[in-house]
Formats: sequence, C-alpha cells, structure tokens
Amino acid sequence: MKTYLRIHVNDSLLRSRSDTGMAEAIAEAIEQEIGREREPDHPFTANVLPPAESLALQLGITRDIVLSAYRALESRSIVRREGNGGWTTTNRKTGPSKALTPPAPALKSVLPANRPARGTPGHITLSSAFIDPRLIPTEDITHCMEAALKKPGPPTYAHVQGYPPLRELIATRLKHIGIEADPEHILITIGSQQVLDLVCRSLEVKRVATENPAYIAAKALFQMSDVAVTGLPVDPFAGIDLARWRDALAHGRPALAYLTSNFQNPTGYSYSSREMQQILEWAQEFQFGILEDDWGSDMLPYSEVKPTLRTLGGDNVLYMNAFTKKTLPSLRVGFVVCNERTLPSLRQSKKLSINGFPAMIEETLFEFIERGYYDRYLERVQSELQARYVHCLALLRTLLPDAVRWTTPGGGPVLWLEFPQRVSIERLIDDLTERKVLVNPQDRAFLTAPHLHGFMIGYAFPDRSEMTTAIEIMAELVKRQL
Amino acid sequence: MKTYLRIHVNDSLLRSRSDTGMAEAIAEAIEQEIGREREPDHPFTANVLPPAESLALQLGITRDIVLSAYRALESRSIVRREGNGGWTTTNRKTGPSKALTPPAPALKSVLPANRPARGTPGHITLSSAFIDPRLIPTEDITHCMEAALKKPGPPTYAHVQGYPPLRELIATRLKHIGIEADPEHILITIGSQQVLDLVCRSLEVKRVATENPAYIAAKALFQMSDVAVTGLPVDPFAGIDLARWRDALAHGRPALAYLTSNFQNPTGYSYSSREMQQILEWAQEFQFGILEDDWGSDMLPYSEVKPTLRTLGGDNVLYMNAFTKKTLPSLRVGFVVCNERTLPSLRQSKKLSINGFPAMIEETLFEFIERGYYDRYLERVQSELQARYVHCLALLRTLLPDAVRWTTPGGGPVLWLEFPQRVSIERLIDDLTERKVLVNPQDRAFLTAPHLHGFMIGYAFPDRSEMTTAIEIMAELVKRQL
Repeated sequence: MKTYLRIHVNDSLLRSRSDTGMAEAIAEAIEQEIGREREPDHPFTANVLPPAESLALQLGITRDIVLSAYRALESRSIVRREGNGGWTTTNRKTGPSKALTPPAPALKSVLPANRPARGTPGHITLSSAFIDPRLIPTEDITHCMEAALKKPGPPTYAHVQGYPPLRELIATRLKHIGIEADPEHILITIGSQQVLDLVCRSLEVKRVATENPAYIAAKALFQMSDVAVTGLPVDPFAGIDLARWRDALAHGRPALAYLTSNFQNPTGYSYSSREMQQILEWAQEFQFGILEDDWGSDMLPYSEVKPTLRTLGGDNVLYMNAFTKKTLPSLRVGFVVCNERTLPSLRQSKKLSINGFPAMIEETLFEFIERGYYDRYLERVQSELQARYVHCLALLRTLLPDAVRWTTPGGGPVLWLEFPQRVSIERLIDDLTERKVLVNPQDRAFLTAPHLHGFMIGYAFPDRSEMTTAIEIMAELVKRQL
Repeated sequence: MKTYLRIHVNDSLLRSRSDTGMAEAIAEAIEQEIGREREPDHPFTANVLPPAESLALQLGITRDIVLSAYRALESRSIVRREGNGGWTTTNRKTGPSKALTPPAPALKSVLPANRPARGTPGHITLSSAFIDPRLIPTEDITHCMEAALKKPGPPTYAHVQGYPPLRELIATRLKHIGIEADPEHILITIGSQQVLDLVCRSLEVKRVATENPAYIAAKALFQMSDVAVTGLPVDPFAGIDLARWRDALAHGRPALAYLTSNFQNPTGYSYSSREMQQILEWAQEFQFGILEDDWGSDMLPYSEVKPTLRTLGGDNVLYMNAFTKKTLPSLRVGFVVCNERTLPSLRQSKKLSINGFPAMIEETLFEFIERGYYDRYLERVQSELQARYVHCLALLRTLLPDAVRWTTPGGGPVLWLEFPQRVSIERLIDDLTERKVLVNPQDRAFLTAPHLHGFMIGYAFPDRSEMTTAIEIMAELVKRQL
C-alpha cells in the first residue's frame, strides 16, 4: 500500500483551457501542495504522486495532459520519475516528523454484562426467555425466504416504516385481540429492543417509570440513554401496592410508564382489572404516557383473554410486541402501534438511527403469516408449551419444599421462583451451574435493594425431560440448604 | 373481543391444598377482586369471568376445580352463568365511569424532511447518492441467499457484534487499502447510519465537529440526539481554510470530529495531504477523537489510492464504511473498525439499541464476497461508473455556461455544482422538477448561513442517456437565468 500525495486540483482552473493550459494548472496545483512540504513544521506524510491515470480520471481529462504536467515539474527538479514508472517528489520525506496518533474518543463505560447462559452445550438452560430453538419452524421459514426471493428482484431499498403488507397483516391480527390499529400507525422495528430505544430517544423529558424488578434489557437501555427511572415495586405474590405506586408516580413525575401488563419479565406478574384501571387513571392525573409491552402474548393458548392497556386506554397508549422471543428469533421483527400523534417522531427516530431494515426479512415474515404457517406453528407450539408449562408447575408443586413459592403467569415464557431468606441464592445458582443447570442471578433487574429473593426461570426453552432433571436437581440443592 | 375480568390468584394460596381447598382459595380471590368493584369510585371495565379453561391452565389445575369455585360464587349471587356458558359478575358494569384515555407521551417534534426525490417514475434522478438499481446484481444476491439458507438451518439468534466470518473478510479487504484491522475490533451495523448513531450515543461529551455543509443524515441525527455541532467550513473549490478550522476546533472543543476525508457528501471534496496531517495534529492538540467516513470508496477504479486518516493516524481513529450506497442497498450492511478501547462501548450500544441483526443477511453478504461475486461486480460497476463519471464531466464542460463550476471528486457518487449568485437555486430546482429532473435543495446541509450557492448531483444513479437529457435541460434553464 502506497501513501500517495493528496493534491487539491480546482476544476475551475481547468475550464476553457487548452491541453497545455490544463497541464500548467495541474503543475501549479501540485507545486503549491509540495511547496508547503518545505515549511519545516509541516512535514508531509507522502512523497509519491498519484498515478497519472488516477488524476486524469478524476479530472475528466486525458492521461497525457497529466503526464505533461508531471514532466514540466520534472524539468524543474521538483519531482522525479522512478524506475517503476511512478513519480515522487524530490524532497524525500517518507513519514511524519512526529507521532500522529489522535486520542481515542471518550466513550461511555460499559455496563456489567449478563452471564452468557443460553444454550450452552451439555447444559440445561432455565435462564432463557426465548423459545426452544428445536421448536422453530426453520424449514417453513426457508420456504418463505425462497418465495420472497422469487418475487421480481430483491427490493433495492428498505422501508423506513416497514413493509406495508406486513403492517396490514399485523393490524388484522391485532383486531382479534381487541386492538384497533391503522396499518399506517404501525412501525416495524428490530425486535422489541428497538421499540424501547426509539421511544427512549424520542422522549422530550427523559423520565420513565417501570416495574421493579424491571426487564433487564430495558433497565440497561434506560441507564445507557441517561433516562431517569422510577421503580414501581411488584410483589408478584401479594399484588401491587397501589398506595406505593401512586406515591412513586407522584414523586417521580415520569413522562412515560413502560409497563408489561401481562406476564411481566422477570416476575411473570399480570395486572388485575383494578390495577389496570388505576394505571390509566393515574396516567390522566399525572399526565404520563404509556408504553405497553405485550411480549408474552401468543405463547399459551388462553393467554389472549387478558385485555391490554391499549384496548382499555385507546390509541394514545403505545403498544409493542415482537415475533422474536416467541417464534422467530432469527428474523428479529418487532413493532410498535402508535397513532397519528406519536408515529412521526418514532418513525423519524428509526430513520435517523438505522434508516431501514432489509425488506427481505419483512417479506419473509409476511409470507410466513400470509400462508397460514404462523397460525399452524402457533397451534403446534402453544400445545407443546402448554404441556411444558403444566409439567413445570406440576414438578414445582411435587418436588420443591413447601417454603418455596412461584408465580403462575399462564402466559409468557417465564415465571418467578421465590425462596425463603435462609436459602442463599448465590450458592444455589453456583451449585446449579456446577450441575449444569443454568440460571441467571436477578440482582441487576432491581432498581432498588431487591425485595424478592429468587430468580426467573423460563419453561419454554428446555423440553419436559430436561425440565424434570433440572427441577429434581434444584429440589435436591434447595433441600440441602433448608 | 370480550373484556375479561383480570384476577390475581396467588399460587401460594393453592399449595398443598385439597381440590375443595383450592376452589375456595380461587373463589376468595375472585370475590376480593369483584368486591372492589362496588367501591363507587373504582368502577370496573369488565364483568366477564375468564373462561374456566384459561384459569385452570394458568394455575396448573383442573377445569373442575375452577368451575366449583365459580359455582360457589354463583350460589352466593356474586356471579351468574350466562346462556352461552360464560360467567359474569352480577353487578353489570360494562364500561368505565369516566374516560380513561391517557395522554400521548410527549415526543420530540419531527425535523423537516428531505424531498422524496429518488427513483420517481418518469423522472431523472440527479439527487441520489445511491447507485443505479439497474446495476445491482440481484440474481447473484439471490443465489447467495439461497446458499445461506441451505446451511444447516437459519441461525436462531443474531450475532451482536456481527457474523464472525464476515468480519474476517472485511478485515482482509481493508488490508488491501492499507488499513490494519483485527476482525475482533470490527462491529457490523445496519448501514453507516447506525455507526453514526452508535458513536453519537456512546459519546461521553456530546460535542462533535463536522464539515459544513454536512452530510444531511448525520446533521439530522446529531440534532435529534442533542449533540452540539461545530461546523468546519468546506469550500470545495478553494480548499480548506486552515486558520478558520483551527479557530472552530479551539472554540468548539469537540469530543469527536466526524470527517469524510474522501469525496465528502455533498461537496465531493477530498482533503489534501497537508490537510490530513493538520487534522491529525489538531486531534492531538485539542484532544478530540476521529470518526472517519470512507463511504465513497470502491466506486471508481482509482479512488483507493487516497490514504485514510485511519491509515495515517492508527487504530484510535474510528473508520466506518458500508456496502449500502455503492452496491447492496437492500442488505443494509455497514461496519465500523474500532480498537480494544473503543469496541466495547459501541458493541454495547448496538446490543442495547437493537440487540442484533438477522444473521441471514450477514451470511448472504459473506457468500457474496467469499464467492468472488463482489469483486466481479465491482469490476463491472466501476467500469460503468467511470464511463458515467467521465460522461458527466464532459457534459458539464460542454453544455454549462462558463460561470458555473463543479467539483471533480474522482470517487464517491456525488459532485457539487456551484452557480453564480444571480442564478436563483430555488427557481432552478423548481424548473428542473417541472421538467422531471430531480435535484434536492441543500440549505439543510449547512450548519450556518450557506457559503455555497448550488447543489449536489449524483452521477451514479442515472444512466448516460438520462444524464445527457438532464444536463441539457439544466443548461437551458441556467442560461435562461443568466
């Protein structure tokens, strides 16, 4: 790799000149640039002239004109021709006089990472909120991709708001769960994480409220984005302490409440009707917006009977969901349902942060739904997940000591296991890991000192036999501590 | 869509009880929830009990147990069975007593949009920095996608940092243009826009400097992200006024300079050797980091001979590029080359903002490069773009009046046309639009009052015959104003 001298030739010098005139203008420009090299405090980093072809192409003139410029400079001993046919300046500075390393930009420090604990070979993964990869209909997805490829040419550009036919399909499906949505008010995203990001960055006032313990990836995003967070304590066994929530909202004055009304991650908690009503009333009283995360829907056959804040509160409520966790993690498609007031800002945030998403991916998902594969898949997977869920609850009830409690979300992929204080969670997780059962500590999910003493497990990732083994091991280890 | 009463049943109530005991616990929980409805200031939004199947599944018990709970409540006239087999509460509130609409969250207002002016049917597009879609090797891309699909199952998850073999290929290719990059320090992104976003959001101090006129999408992103911007004025005809830049940097004290050392958008300007050297020296003096955007490389056969700031300044310089504008817009793959100090923060920013990108897309691009399709494509497209570039310069020189000037970048897809003050740019653009030639006004690219009087045109989007027509029309319209 040669480091060529970079020359600035002003095209307007070349206008309406003869070939000789142009050569003179080029020689002048080069001499001007080289001339500076002689100033002792501005040594050059390069002494090789650009190839004549290159300069000729750039300026839209013939190579001969450039060569006569070079030769004119040669005749004045400013440049010389080398044996290899290249041209160099006669004052042979080949490197900078002092180190030129600029500083690395000062970037934010990195938050502590989660344990990587999903799908490690030879281990049983209880820590994942994803679905068992063995259940994913990869063949059907492949067919849909092939079909998308066969459409007249892959699309050249991405759709900023998302592939319109996919938005229409999503709107139709939402209607079945009571959510009226205009396809024009749906924004397709990269998973639900991007919805969170787009909303965060669009907020005029960067103050949010969310459940405590919080969804870990949301909490980390808030932290990275300098968003102040008010925690709304959730005790998934006793329910919500309404007085404490009201206090927290009155003091925190959030601009937005990010709420998972059903099957909250990590507790598995779903709000009661009364709690839903209260939240909507407080939103009016304290004037905060609502972003509702319905991530856990579609996983179990009956989970859709729970109404959403969007249904009850209308289209000012931002409703988000994704196809990633439950079905098609590799496609990374999520969405947010807005209205005419909220869409423009979120759409622009998407445009300016990633511009668009490969349309190919959205077309594949469209095919997958349009052909009925998605419904067929849901039917199959819901029946399998129902079996796993029921099996998991039965194991917990049969094997774990009475002092251990758990939530029964009836939807979503996770539930919370709560242990008596005398069980060391840290030791339990370490012991489990040693026995090749993977669970993540949840300390980082709490916004204040943890008021729960346990961890989340996902019943959708391991199969029934793996779950049996895992809970048997857990029961043995817990009993050892009691 | 029915709106069901949402009930909170604490599973720990059900532990170690008989079927009758469980039914009692459920009835109690329901009565407790319904009881609240009677408080006059807390009307319910739902009076339909969840289907017994649903509650049974949720709690991991039989439907019969739930039904005996419902029947117990029926015998006390708290609920009743409806003709359709469903259950409702006896106090028939069917809607909220007052409107529950929460406010829409207060989101940032939307920046004014660019004119949509690319590829409008029946028009000639001079405004695009993209490549002619007719040149894109859609068939080869399709083959590569098919090959990626045939690998053992589409991958379940996305790679946060990017598909490792693709990062290795990119590192190898960078070496050819003088850039040493460890694949472990490359982060794959969604186009170059995401690089800008990740860097912006990771900055500890949100102050950047960039060329003025600026890349419009970068300027808009800075604005949306509350990043203060110092403009570094570029006169692409006279070159850089070093004294003014030094002043601007000394006063603006940016944490980062976002610079396009070659073929800047929208001016087409490339820094001279002296200017490159100066920038690196100032980075040391004023302690700012550098993000170098090499977007215009690879488009014309000789454009690679210009060394980059990354080559000269070492691996603290963040180097970004993308496959979108020049070749494969539909894949939306870009990347940034970091070092061990800068990677972790940018990687985390990507993880927390989108988590990952569909690996499928990265695998397709990997195949496309690995099979040699990319080099074959570059050879073909560079020869076509060279013909277009040379043709465009010849047209400008032959047809436009002497008073009009333009830049000759010799790389990248755009050049700047500069008109005498007595030409109204607004009128010229309107006239061009009326004649179906699309150009974008560039006022929004300037960070201060515009010091240039013209606009950018892209020579890579229209073919030669379209360019002839467009420049003929432009010449006619300009002459009319002179």
